[in-house]
Amino acid sequence: MAATVTISSGATWQEVALDRQKHRDATLSLLDPPLPSIDTIPLNTTPLAKQILTAEEIKITETLVEDLLPQLARGELSSVTVTKAFLRRAGLAQKATNCITELLPQRALEHAAYLDTYLAEHKKPLGPLHGLPISVKEHIGMKGLDWNAGFVAWVGKVAEKDAHILRILWEAGAVFYVRSTQPQSLMHLETSSNLYGVTTNPYNTTLTAGGSSGGEGALVGFRGSCLGIGTDIGGSIRSPAANNGVYGMKPTSGRLPMKGLTATQEGEEQIVPTIGPLSTSLEGCKLFIKTIIDAKPWYREPSLLPFPWKEEDFFKGRKLKVAVLWDDGVVKPHPPVTRTLKQVVDKLRGSSNVEIVEWKPYKHDLAWELIANLYFSDGGAEEAEAINSSGEPWRPLTKHIITSNPHCQSHTISSVWAATIKRDDYRSEYAELWNSTATSVGSRSELEGMVDVILSPVGPGAAPKIDTAKWWGYTSQWNLLDYPALVFPVDRVDVVKDGEKVVHERRNERDKENWELWEKYGAEGWKDAPVSLQLIGRRYEDEKVIQALEILKKEAGFPFVDYI
Amino acid sequence: MAATVTISSGATWQEVALDRQKHRDATLSLLDPPLPSIDTIPLNTTPLAKQILTAEEIKITETLVEDLLPQLARGELSSVTVTKAFLRRAGLAQKATNCITELLPQRALEHAAYLDTYLAEHKKPLGPLHGLPISVKEHIGMKGLDWNAGFVAWVGKVAEKDAHILRILWEAGAVFYVRSTQPQSLMHLETSSNLYGVTTNPYNTTLTAGGSSGGEGALVGFRGSCLGIGTDIGGSIRSPAANNGVYGMKPTSGRLPMKGLTATQEGEEQIVPTIGPLSTSLEGCKLFIKTIIDAKPWYREPSLLPFPWKEEDFFKGRKLKVAVLWDDGVVKPHPPVTRTLKQVVDKLRGSSNVEIVEWKPYKHDLAWELIANLYFSDGGAEEAEAINSSGEPWRPLTKHIITSNPHCQSHTISSVWAATIKRDDYRSEYAELWNSTATSVGSRSELEGMVDVILSPVGPGAAPKIDTAKWWGYTSQWNLLDYPALVFPVDRVDVVKDGEKVVHERRNERDKENWELWEKYGAEGWKDAPVSLQLIGRRYEDEKVIQALEILKKEAGFPFVDYI
Repeated sequence: MAATVTISSGATWQEVALDRQKHRDATLSLLDPPLPSIDTIPLNTTPLAKQILTAEEIKITETLVEDLLPQLARGELSSVTVTKAFLRRAGLAQKATNCITELLPQRALEHAAYLDTYLAEHKKPLGPLHGLPISVKEHIGMKGLDWNAGFVAWVGKVAEKDAHILRILWEAGAVFYVRSTQPQSLMHLETSSNLYGVTTNPYNTTLTAGGSSGGEGALVGFRGSCLGIGTDIGGSIRSPAANNGVYGMKPTSGRLPMKGLTATQEGEEQIVPTIGPLSTSLEGCKLFIKTIIDAKPWYREPSLLPFPWKEEDFFKGRKLKVAVLWDDGVVKPHPPVTRTLKQVVDKLRGSSNVEIVEWKPYKHDLAWELIANLYFSDGGAEEAEAINSSGEPWRPLTKHIITSNPHCQSHTISSVWAATIKRDDYRSEYAELWNSTATSVGSRSELEGMVDVILSPVGPGAAPKIDTAKWWGYTSQWNLLDYPALVFPVDRVDVVKDGEKVVHERRNERDKENWELWEKYGAEGWKDAPVSLQLIGRRYEDEKVIQALEILKKEAGFPFVDYI
Repeated sequence: MAATVTISSGATWQEVALDRQKHRDATLSLLDPPLPSIDTIPLNTTPLAKQILTAEEIKITETLVEDLLPQLARGELSSVTVTKAFLRRAGLAQKATNCITELLPQRALEHAAYLDTYLAEHKKPLGPLHGLPISVKEHIGMKGLDWNAGFVAWVGKVAEKDAHILRILWEAGAVFYVRSTQPQSLMHLETSSNLYGVTTNPYNTTLTAGGSSGGEGALVGFRGSCLGIGTDIGGSIRSPAANNGVYGMKPTSGRLPMKGLTATQEGEEQIVPTIGPLSTSLEGCKLFIKTIIDAKPWYREPSLLPFPWKEEDFFKGRKLKVAVLWDDGVVKPHPPVTRTLKQVVDKLRGSSNVEIVEWKPYKHDLAWELIANLYFSDGGAEEAEAINSSGEPWRPLTKHIITSNPHCQSHTISSVWAATIKRDDYRSEYAELWNSTATSVGSRSELEGMVDVILSPVGPGAAPKIDTAKWWGYTSQWNLLDYPALVFPVDRVDVVKDGEKVVHERRNERDKENWELWEKYGAEGWKDAPVSLQLIGRRYEDEKVIQALEILKKEAGFPFVDYI
């Protein structure tokens, strides 16, 4: 392959971007059989798969992780066959939504073949993820491959080794076959960069795939992947999972390995990013997290916590207590979100295994101020350097979160300490709020009968129109608190049910913008868009949140629709 | 009581200090019966107790925590009797070593009486620490009491409520009866302030009690307390525990509650302080930690980790693997330390339950540079403000760690991130070093047969001469790595055995200073000084370290002497 065109070798940012796109297209051209060119991308791109792929490819790529794995482990499906199918569908997802930075057919198929041979020779799988293709967000380092985190200036930087998480997944038998797009700066809830342009939503191309793991979101939503890896510091796993109707989890920090990722703000500790799965199934998310934790990553990455995966039955002999957060009090959600949440809550009220209570938002506006102040404690100097050094333009949403962010500040050591204390005060107050849901305080202040999980929207609407995803509060709230949060698909926008006129008095500028969009486009503007919800637990209660969702899924019977 | 004299009310620093001392003496004068005045403080002060206290008081105060508690729980000893005995011995410890800031006879005896009544009425103890007197370092907030952290300017600041840890201990049945001294800035491995002067070592008053929890060290060493609370960011629990021949543990961060303490550098997160016990027994330390963790403090303090106390048998069916760190490669320990360590290792080599290997120090000089750079990332501006605003002079060891510390730097956000990355790199390298002791790497890189604990000196000598405790490396090493470390008494300086001439070529300025002191004073200069050692585990393996020490105590039979 030709040498990478880079800024440091004297190229313009446009030349660098073009070269990256050519490289991506070159990897697509290796597909065998090749994909046809597509003249017109439909509004809802998902039917393309059935028009273009083989029945076997469709079947494989629409099989859930928990169903693929036993077939792979028994050799009923070869890893080569499965990998080929996902490579082709990922390629098609690229054509439909512009969600990948490169396919890795050569190394993926080579490894898949190795795994097939291993299984044949040893009569047992290499590990719990034997033969499973996994898609990977670009800034997660992969040995020998470009590692640009969405900055033109960083193109040409190459990872010296695989990220820690990839090494673990590799040893568990995974196959890495595709790398996915991310926005400039990694700090949008959408995915647009000057390297690759805009990643769109496969269900409605006028909408964003979300971000910053939007490449993963579109890819998994399109079923070009059944399990992908994203990262989240304000909603970057959950927004794309929600927008594309798939499961996505942001675990508590310190549980999954972060070593070997690249981004700005390295060394910053006030608000820490987390890594996690996006998957077509809840079980896919769970298997991903459990496999990594079972590998005891804390020995090799000392910032991680040695919490083994908990298998206990958290709700034995009692009701699961769910608190419903209808509205964060800052930006009121669009009608499809509230309607979907109501549908779920109504079903759960009928369950004898679930208790529903209300959750009053506690200063979520302040929470946003605190986190938006701590995201860039150097005032965004590293991002400015990374962007300006190539001459690439600032994308609108990069401006939104840095230069137009009224809470962004170039901190001193002293002011960042003060901001950290405010963060901790808020965390303490929220913990006390949660403690206050205890129905009784036993001896020595033991808290009993507390809320288990919060059920809430993932954002103030379904997938936003391109370049309008400005209110992070529904997701960033749980990054500030460092609570685990799990997103799951429930319904889709219904042009009829969601079309009724709603009168809503504007609360503030952000709320006004959100409602003006709804009024401008109406339900029709979100045709076919998935509607998802979010389940949140207390810090480190990751396993409990997953188990709670298993129960809620069963009790309420969502998702209420098939997207594919 | 008269209003506190403060800087803000116009007093000089000398007037403020004098008022604090008068207040302290006034609390001592409440003792009933009063203590006699002592004309001459002997070099080794510990025999004073037997000369002045009653046989019952001596017996009670020399009983270990694990033996006191059942007697208190059964009502064989009343809490009032026990508290009175400790109040009197603490008062005597003050006269001998200048280790307290105030006695709390009134509130302590009132609460002890309440607990006695409770037991009589309920026929069961209030909690696992029922009736037990616990001593408390001053900067741990106590409702309504002064809270100055060793700064003259802070006198007059009053805690609005009890620190979180005190609330838990209170609910477990503890009685707080005395508050102990700390150095100016809390950042010495000794205890000297302009408020109270110097806290000396009860075994040899030419030596320091250590610090910054030196008040606790002297108090527990003198048996004016059987269980006290200290804090540690570079050795501040372990240095005083070691110097005074008692047990002391610095747990991993995030395990014990830190809310409600006062100090400079609040909001700083690169190197975090920890809180922990000093006790006359290992079991005292263990009970303290276990009681607090059993109260699930993480619900009320969200920065804490929800690790329950682990009761498992860590070494079942295998040898405990101990690595010996003889010397950190920077400052070679004085002869009594090496001799004592050798004695222990020789005994352990004869044990069939223990395996001894060597631990090569890995860049402990770099480790010191990293932590000394991160202690004051504002360049010590907060400390300077806290000291200079009263006009009090800088103590020599405050200068040592701030203004004369060549690694201290007024950081920018960008430079503190770079320093944090270096810290993490070092932590990763040390983790890999530990991983490399695995005797086999199983499937999926499982590590087997690794070293369990490191056995090491606590400092480059026994308790230092006043104002000479300058090398923190033996303790700060484990703060940088955030490893749990437990200090325990083993022997005492032996004028004969330790008196042999040692030829040691100086490695550096710090090593030279340390050895010049030894050559100047000889073993005689450390007459009667306890010699202690340190046991260190991997991050979060607190329980394992305690259990390992239980085994080593049994196998090697230390302490080899009785101090009291």
